[in-house]
Amino acid sequence: MYGTLLQKVNSPQDIKDLDIHQLKLLSEEIRSYIISTIEKTGGHLGANLGVVELTLALHSELNSPKDRIIWDVGHQCYPHKLITGRKDQFSTLRQWQGLSGFPCPNESEHDHFGVGHSSTSISAAAGMAIARDLQGDDYKVVAVIGDGALTGGMAFEALNHIGTLGKDIVVILNDNDMSITNNVGALSDYLGRIRADSTLYKAREDLSSFLRRVPVVGSPVSKVAHKFKRTLKTILPGQLFEELGFAYFGPFDGHNIPQLRKAIRSGLQRGGPVLIHVNTQKGRGHALAEESPHRYHGVGPLSVVKRRQEISYSKVFGNSLVELAKENSKIVAITAAMRDGTGLGKFAKTFPKRFFDVGIAEQHAVTLAAGMAKDGLRPVVALYSTFAQRSYDQIIHDLALQRLPVVLAIDRAGVVGDDGPTHQGVFDISFLRTVPNLVILAPCNGEELSAMLTWAIRQNGPVIIRYPRANTSIESGEALVFDESAPITASQIRNGRDGVILAPGPLVEIAQDAAGILASEYNLAVVNVRSLKPLDEAMILKLAKASNYVLTIEDHVLAGGFGSSVLELLSTVPRVRVDRIGYPDTFIPQGNIEQLYEEYGITSQHIAQRVRQTLSGQAYRLVARKDK
Amino acid sequence: MYGTLLQKVNSPQDIKDLDIHQLKLLSEEIRSYIISTIEKTGGHLGANLGVVELTLALHSELNSPKDRIIWDVGHQCYPHKLITGRKDQFSTLRQWQGLSGFPCPNESEHDHFGVGHSSTSISAAAGMAIARDLQGDDYKVVAVIGDGALTGGMAFEALNHIGTLGKDIVVILNDNDMSITNNVGALSDYLGRIRADSTLYKAREDLSSFLRRVPVVGSPVSKVAHKFKRTLKTILPGQLFEELGFAYFGPFDGHNIPQLRKAIRSGLQRGGPVLIHVNTQKGRGHALAEESPHRYHGVGPLSVVKRRQEISYSKVFGNSLVELAKENSKIVAITAAMRDGTGLGKFAKTFPKRFFDVGIAEQHAVTLAAGMAKDGLRPVVALYSTFAQRSYDQIIHDLALQRLPVVLAIDRAGVVGDDGPTHQGVFDISFLRTVPNLVILAPCNGEELSAMLTWAIRQNGPVIIRYPRANTSIESGEALVFDESAPITASQIRNGRDGVILAPGPLVEIAQDAAGILASEYNLAVVNVRSLKPLDEAMILKLAKASNYVLTIEDHVLAGGFGSSVLELLSTVPRVRVDRIGYPDTFIPQGNIEQLYEEYGITSQHIAQRVRQTLSGQAYRLVARKDK
Repeated sequence: MYGTLLQKVNSPQDIKDLDIHQLKLLSEEIRSYIISTIEKTGGHLGANLGVVELTLALHSELNSPKDRIIWDVGHQCYPHKLITGRKDQFSTLRQWQGLSGFPCPNESEHDHFGVGHSSTSISAAAGMAIARDLQGDDYKVVAVIGDGALTGGMAFEALNHIGTLGKDIVVILNDNDMSITNNVGALSDYLGRIRADSTLYKAREDLSSFLRRVPVVGSPVSKVAHKFKRTLKTILPGQLFEELGFAYFGPFDGHNIPQLRKAIRSGLQRGGPVLIHVNTQKGRGHALAEESPHRYHGVGPLSVVKRRQEISYSKVFGNSLVELAKENSKIVAITAAMRDGTGLGKFAKTFPKRFFDVGIAEQHAVTLAAGMAKDGLRPVVALYSTFAQRSYDQIIHDLALQRLPVVLAIDRAGVVGDDGPTHQGVFDISFLRTVPNLVILAPCNGEELSAMLTWAIRQNGPVIIRYPRANTSIESGEALVFDESAPITASQIRNGRDGVILAPGPLVEIAQDAAGILASEYNLAVVNVRSLKPLDEAMILKLAKASNYVLTIEDHVLAGGFGSSVLELLSTVPRVRVDRIGYPDTFIPQGNIEQLYEEYGITSQHIAQRVRQTLSGQAYRLVARKDK
Repeated sequence: MYGTLLQKVNSPQDIKDLDIHQLKLLSEEIRSYIISTIEKTGGHLGANLGVVELTLALHSELNSPKDRIIWDVGHQCYPHKLITGRKDQFSTLRQWQGLSGFPCPNESEHDHFGVGHSSTSISAAAGMAIARDLQGDDYKVVAVIGDGALTGGMAFEALNHIGTLGKDIVVILNDNDMSITNNVGALSDYLGRIRADSTLYKAREDLSSFLRRVPVVGSPVSKVAHKFKRTLKTILPGQLFEELGFAYFGPFDGHNIPQLRKAIRSGLQRGGPVLIHVNTQKGRGHALAEESPHRYHGVGPLSVVKRRQEISYSKVFGNSLVELAKENSKIVAITAAMRDGTGLGKFAKTFPKRFFDVGIAEQHAVTLAAGMAKDGLRPVVALYSTFAQRSYDQIIHDLALQRLPVVLAIDRAGVVGDDGPTHQGVFDISFLRTVPNLVILAPCNGEELSAMLTWAIRQNGPVIIRYPRANTSIESGEALVFDESAPITASQIRNGRDGVILAPGPLVEIAQDAAGILASEYNLAVVNVRSLKPLDEAMILKLAKASNYVLTIEDHVLAGGFGSSVLELLSTVPRVRVDRIGYPDTFIPQGNIEQLYEEYGITSQHIAQRVRQTLSGQAYRLVARKDK
């Protein structure tokens, strides 16, 4: 099971006495344990394999939990988890009630800060360094951030702030030259130049020694030389970070433990803000992951709502967009470091000039799209629901207020499963439906997704399409066409006089099943809502008045969600009872999607039970039945 | 009224034939017209006075509207508005149905992109440059961004992306060494060094010429020199931007029109991404504004709900926090470039080491606070409601999910008046109440604000306090104390059996007035809601059941807002009619706050009228009265 060394490591203290040879062995044991576990559980493989030596070096030089190690994004925390007393639970990773795939303070005192989305570590570390100094404590603070995460704007905000704070804080730049797919942007190029230009060090030293030999006073040359001494530091690699107020150390080999330890020690000793640049190899030690690191970013059993169905919504989206783009040269696609996850890989290959991966930069992605739309293109931005939270203000200002024709494809809407509470897409209906001018659609299968995308591209304002991390049965949308000059209306897919179930997206199928279960007791209508905003008010009002009982279901929190919008609509209609099923006011933990649906009652059995209870309830019956 | 030159300028075409002398005169005419107008209307003075020459230089070299000039934030667009055909409406600036204080595409074809919040211009410009090239157009794209706005993370996301796109795009860095108060951060220091180090140019030139004289082959010195030629560009000022893939031009005197025109022309000719660094003086030409630029950032008649009241909520907040901080050394305060606007000026003076202005960087502000709270401090972050949209994801992850004890003071909640639709704080209840673990409070006066702040600081999780841009009567909270170990409950301030008005914050007074107006017709209870989340369910249920009629009022959109949360609570209670007053599903335009309240029915008269209509309405009466 474990290697002999890992077997004995139950806390970071247990690695303190290991010599270099033993640490190397331990690295290999950790690596092989991670690989064998992830093959079973799924998880983030590549990034974790890249930081094994770095983790050991950090824990060798620091005293966690007194010293704080903040792992950005957290896709790099598995080795850390293994040596901080959690190796025995490691096989429960990302499972219901198991270990989180991210640092999680509830899980261990060594996980000092909760992380899930990218680019937060430097800000959090800065807060801790300030707290330390104001309170006269003396712990050390180290943030570990990937080069991908560094493209997120808030990482820059933090660097800019820390650069003038003068606090002792070490930022380790874990540069594996990848975010999730390939890295993008000028910063990545810049880091590449540092990597390539190791001769620069030598040149600087030569130049220094040359300049020392130039007389300080006298000729014009000496004046220049004097001036030049002052600006000498500007030709260091890492100059960009130096200009931002950081002392730059590096680049170092991220798999050389002695070198890493020495660098970390020096960085801590120097004081002030220090950036240590470490080159690591994503997927290190796993032949396939080294070769195709983006394919091994996150691997493992994909949780899907219906395993018998064959194609993911993401893929339907990507494929449909390719077809549309063949007909319409104005269509461009934008992703924020999620090319493959959002199904845009095919688009990127087919239309490389019309595809834009902006890196982990959701804010820029949305406003970039707005600029494109303003000048005549038809941009489609694909974001996960949870990451759209990062671009909320831009959605309000640059899509909604300016009514720009951008299609925002919100993937991973609803619970996403094993990534847990930081990644569940269960707030988007609430935070988006409150914004004027937005149209929000929810397709119930691939056919609808494809048809909605076709419709959305032809509108004159912003359209959001939200769909889950799930598979669906129907790939092509050729059979279904929405009238582009009219709003998308709801579709009643079952008649019934005892009440109506309103279901958006793939929950329609669950609603139908529930109505089937109840068929011998009650006749329930079922509506495929299709448009969450605007609601098909005419249909909902008609059906609500006909039966006086409405049940909404949603893969979303109840507070402010879809059911809440139905309550608003029906608030002026006396006597209609509105019952809502969705998530309570709590963060939804990890677990596979079926488990979460079961746990929170998003199942046909539970829906049927709820209907029975309500329709047989005395309090309700008085009101609901008397008008029939 | 206008000067003789400005009189004749009705479009940018009209300045094309002016010579340098005339352009200088026109600058002065524009400057004095802006000063005399702003003195009457209020508005953003300093930034606009700083860009008069830059605006003329831009419009001289570009052909707007074919060429696109994107003004970041937009506090710099008044000279642009004056010369693009809007001088006759300029006195309606920021007023109901008047000119917007920001670039506004509905207003003029010369305002190519809508702007309001900071740091979006480079992203939008990038989108336009991409659209141009994909569609084979040939317009020019220029973004003008201030050094303050450059601290916003999304500006960096955009720079990082553009640096590798290779598109022709000019970014003008309008460096006035100020954001709204003083600029903060390493980038600002960096720009300061460029400004200070104008000799660097000369040195570089000398060094170049020296190096040309060194033999290319031979001695060690020549090797170094050869190497050095390659890295010579790295000691340019603007190296940071060069590393990000931009050609850097500057710094230039932002008040020297010929120099500016030449720089802009060269930048456009060069092609690729170019950054032109321009030094301007905020408040230029206005003695007082030059001296105290932050006091003249925005000036003019402050719209307040009740003019007779004497102190703003912001000031009560700031003063109360100072008092609390005297007792509790753990309290620290954070602002994102809004020290004075949020009332934190006194705190900054009293506790300079415990005060943190992070620049225009709301994302970092929130996560910084989370880090501080994690390590024992009691941070209070003050943001305007509209800017909190920028930190939404961080509020979810780093305050709510981690339950960290941060107080988030949401200032400018509700309509803010003359800043218009980009700045109205009318979405925060919706986007915040959907998030688990948050407590959201709304004080009805200064006394409550102070008491709520005292309570909030002592909680173990995040607390949000939202209050408007308004004055209030009561400064000190000594008389009012909330039990720190219990939730804050609602307060019934008027009894009545015919219905209950639920009002949060300062709307309580309006609700009371409405109840007074109706006193001879109906007896209405009035509740000061105090806690928007969690609601005081017991009290609301009791009163709702007692009268079967509930009216909610809110200074917020109806979709997903406070009234919506009351609907959710009462959805299980048959027969209760819930009526809601608030903003419809549209962006709320500019106007002073009284006008907006009048327009959207947030007045005691309108509330009384609504109650009359509902309670006398036949449809409702059947239900509402029969159980009495």
